[in-house]
Amino acid sequence: MIILGIDPGLAIVGFGVLEVLGDNRRVIEYGEINSPAHTPTPKRIKMIYDDVSYVINKYKPDCMAIEELFFNNNAKTAIDVAMARGALVLAAENAGIDVAEYTPLQVKQAVVGYGRADKNQVQQMVKLMLKLHEVPKPDDVADALAIALTHANTIRFELKISN
Amino acid sequence: MIILGIDPGLAIVGFGVLEVLGDNRRVIEYGEINSPAHTPTPKRIKMIYDDVSYVINKYKPDCMAIEELFFNNNAKTAIDVAMARGALVLAAENAGIDVAEYTPLQVKQAVVGYGRADKNQVQQMVKLMLKLHEVPKPDDVADALAIALTHANTIRFELKISN
Repeated sequence: MIILGIDPGLAIVGFGVLEVLGDNRRVIEYGEINSPAHTPTPKRIKMIYDDVSYVINKYKPDCMAIEELFFNNNAKTAIDVAMARGALVLAAENAGIDVAEYTPLQVKQAVVGYGRADKNQVQQMVKLMLKLHEVPKPDDVADALAIALTHANTIRFELKISN
Repeated sequence: MIILGIDPGLAIVGFGVLEVLGDNRRVIEYGEINSPAHTPTPKRIKMIYDDVSYVINKYKPDCMAIEELFFNNNAKTAIDVAMARGALVLAAENAGIDVAEYTPLQVKQAVVGYGRADKNQVQQMVKLMLKLHEVPKPDDVADALAIALTHANTIRFELKISN
């Protein structure tokens, strides 16, 4: 199956496309979707929706795995990111693909095996598990691959225990 | 011109369609868009997007006037409402109509003339200005009409000072 991992944001959306065959995970593509500052938020939301719809149409993922949001100190940023997240899950729904949501804690547990792992540990594990030559940059992209890996490991585990 | 006022929400989106001709404002339609609880949020976001797109297609507004969000005490609710708001402005952008955003303070000042007006004062002014027999229910609908009125008064004022 093909999994599209998404790290939601307004200025930067990280995405990673993984192919999962049994225990193998192969990176098909990763990158970032940007929307320019000093542009009205509704127009930025549309750019993000159009770009992620393009990625979905190109790679035909079976599902989108996306990070859940929690409040942080910056209220304006949290609301903007949540609006972008609405457009991202809508793009998945409009394309008829499933959406799986994971908390940062679940991502850390699935990728590092330890819920209090730091960002660097997660990134090193992403590099190792996906046999990459370096940690993908920016952080949003590494995070998107971590979320895709989390979904791959979660469904694999569910398949194993149901057999 | 025709203005679509929107009070954003996840469970309830209030909407109001106003026709503005000079100093006259006529209510064409108002109502609420609902999404059921106990349904995955991405599916609820899609329902809201589809329903508001239907309203836009039916009444062909020139613009959407929508309330800006601020943080409240319930973090989960604020994020859900912001996601829904992302889908609402996206529906406007995808239909090629403008989006105008107003803060609750701007709405109160435009409708009651007093930024610290309470909800009841706003609702009574909506009823009076739109010559309605009663205050529209639920509150989300009255709020949507108040936002549409705010936009009508704002553009009218801008036209007057530019002549």
